[in-house]
Amino acid sequence: MPEPSPSRALIDVGRRFYSRNWVLATSGNFSAVISHSPLLLCITQSAAHKGTLTPRNFLTIDGSTRPVGRTTARPSAEASLHIEIVRARKAGAVLHTHSVWSTMLSDRHSAEGGLALQGFEMLKGLDGVTTHTHREWVPILENDQDMARLAGAMAGVLSDHPDAHGVLLRGHGLYTWGRTIAEAERHVEALEFLLETVGRQK
Amino acid sequence: MPEPSPSRALIDVGRRFYSRNWVLATSGNFSAVISHSPLLLCITQSAAHKGTLTPRNFLTIDGSTRPVGRTTARPSAEASLHIEIVRARKAGAVLHTHSVWSTMLSDRHSAEGGLALQGFEMLKGLDGVTTHTHREWVPILENDQDMARLAGAMAGVLSDHPDAHGVLLRGHGLYTWGRTIAEAERHVEALEFLLETVGRQK
Amino acid sequence: MPEPSPSRALIDVGRRFYSRNWVLATSGNFSAVISHSPLLLCITQSAAHKGTLTPRNFLTIDGSTRPVGRTTARPSAEASLHIEIVRARKAGAVLHTHSVWSTMLSDRHSAEGGLALQGFEMLKGLDGVTTHTHREWVPILENDQDMARLAGAMAGVLSDHPDAHGVLLRGHGLYTWGRTIAEAERHVEALEFLLETVGRQK
Amino acid sequence: MPEPSPSRALIDVGRRFYSRNWVLATSGNFSAVISHSPLLLCITQSAAHKGTLTPRNFLTIDGSTRPVGRTTARPSAEASLHIEIVRARKAGAVLHTHSVWSTMLSDRHSAEGGLALQGFEMLKGLDGVTTHTHREWVPILENDQDMARLAGAMAGVLSDHPDAHGVLLRGHGLYTWGRTIAEAERHVEALEFLLETVGRQK
Repeated sequence: MPEPSPSRALIDVGRRFYSRNWVLATSGNFSAVISHSPLLLCITQSAAHKGTLTPRNFLTIDGSTRPVGRTTARPSAEASLHIEIVRARKAGAVLHTHSVWSTMLSDRHSAEGGLALQGFEMLKGLDGVTTHTHREWVPILENDQDMARLAGAMAGVLSDHPDAHGVLLRGHGLYTWGRTIAEAERHVEALEFLLETVGRQK
Repeated sequence: MPEPSPSRALIDVGRRFYSRNWVLATSGNFSAVISHSPLLLCITQSAAHKGTLTPRNFLTIDGSTRPVGRTTARPSAEASLHIEIVRARKAGAVLHTHSVWSTMLSDRHSAEGGLALQGFEMLKGLDGVTTHTHREWVPILENDQDMARLAGAMAGVLSDHPDAHGVLLRGHGLYTWGRTIAEAERHVEALEFLLETVGRQK
Repeated sequence: MPEPSPSRALIDVGRRFYSRNWVLATSGNFSAVISHSPLLLCITQSAAHKGTLTPRNFLTIDGSTRPVGRTTARPSAEASLHIEIVRARKAGAVLHTHSVWSTMLSDRHSAEGGLALQGFEMLKGLDGVTTHTHREWVPILENDQDMARLAGAMAGVLSDHPDAHGVLLRGHGLYTWGRTIAEAERHVEALEFLLETVGRQK
Repeated sequence: MPEPSPSRALIDVGRRFYSRNWVLATSGNFSAVISHSPLLLCITQSAAHKGTLTPRNFLTIDGSTRPVGRTTARPSAEASLHIEIVRARKAGAVLHTHSVWSTMLSDRHSAEGGLALQGFEMLKGLDGVTTHTHREWVPILENDQDMARLAGAMAGVLSDHPDAHGVLLRGHGLYTWGRTIAEAERHVEALEFLLETVGRQK
């Protein structure tokens, strides 16, 4: 069962991420599932300031990213990535952040197509991981302004890496998700922490 | 149409920038256009603390940087740079920040006369930029305590680089602008993020 | 005499540590002694968010880590480490943080089995240290998901290093303690400061 | 004329410095002159938490660091350094911070006996400095737990460098001052900014 008012929880997420510099300059976007069948997603509107979100910065879209109900708001341009993730992972929430470390590392490791995280207790912040010896492969997708093509690439990488908890877009940032908004936020914190740690090690 | 009370919005900008260490030690200055013709600019007074601004820390100046109305306050010494930017870009707001990364990078790249930013999704935080493949050239001006000469140099660099969204002063910081205060703040966040990213990469 | 309401003080500690990124993604755990004989410990429950703790996120355990009183909450999986520390050091509070710098340095220096801190005035933040010439050896334990084995290793390292004020777990974070919650928090701040300083020096 | 209630202003300074990690673990100490002749100084008591100061964490001392009036509080162990600075510089306030960057740089440059800052606009945050071409020499004193000897060394370095706006203690932190608390705080912000900039450049 999704929470009654996902926008309220996402507003708090935005405030916390903004204070950590993870969603500067209206970057980032957030969504939470209202219904899986038919698919209805509460998502941030395009170009909203993520540190001062209000309920009016959210809208509901269907599985084709079409707005539902009376609204003049447009969903984030990356709404189709949210839809792919929700479908592939049965996720209840999808969070996209845009930190300095994820931007740098997604560029530095793009040639390898991903980045391995291993040996850190913080990996246990990821759903189902029970030991620091876990090896988490974070795939890196080439960035693309063609959203249909990027959504297809996202679907492909999610299928190729069924155990991945997050995906990086090169020079762009992190996508992660969870069954609930709280779990997705925990995944953001764990992955951003690990990326900063690996980034500073080199 | 400019907002009714630009000082209120600039007070909030100052509080946010101060918490991010972008305007320490009374550095930085902010302005917003009240009227384009004749030119009237609401600007921070000289040497004000940017984290705790009050309406009394602002004054109105004309296109010659002369205070308008009854005031004993002096405008920021850099008021003439604000005037040049407003004229050259038809800007509605000008924000000058003074971060560690902009200070370092403006010094490191001064010999090249500027700094290129390319390949980052965050570039789309800049007005009119629609793809990460955009190449943003951020010109660097030599710092100068002669304000008339520096204003002339600013006018020159704005003319030579009509597409630039910001200008660095060497060892000094960033000037950027926007049609509104919100757009100018978005430009600060995008450019400061990009400078930190490039600064950490090397 | 322990404070009347340790959970209230630990809630404030959590909020401060979360804002400093020392307990992201539900990492970290905190405890305070209610009674030394018999041993009763107020401790954070497993998987609680450390920035928004409430009294319901705490429970009381005995010296065998068994919950006391009516509760369905489970203590942190690392409760046995808290018990070992309280017994070995006669501590009144134990705080475990999980910062980027402690994660990095505990990995970098694991082969030496520890890390020396010397020459810093901040060492005087540690109980009983009166000069910057003090040499503080911070032992590093190999991380382990077998809690009984890890508790045994903790007991061993505390016995081998009777003067140590903190212990690092490799790739995991810092354990420190104090006679009071305030002293334990001071030890966290001093050690995290020193680890960041040493980490940036290299 | 000193402010009527210096402790109130110093409480706010402490809160801001603590949030920037400049006075962790009860490090740092602050004072403001109540009277120059006879010399009376309002100063933080020993070992107070600088982020949550209250009026009771302050006491008044005379020019021999002896408490004045009915108090059981002891002044900071470094009170004699404050007295030397107030006398040598006719200062109205003295602030001592303890940041990671000042700790690192005071160690790195100790063999040269100081550190030069030049070419930065932020130098104009220092009283009387009107151009970025100014060369600020920040002397570094060897740290010492013998306070009489350290106070003598401070008096010597202030006399040898009459234009210096601050002094570093090796592995310990920064001392700066001003005619008012606000000016001293501006000096802290300017010098800490410059130290971080120089520290990151290398």
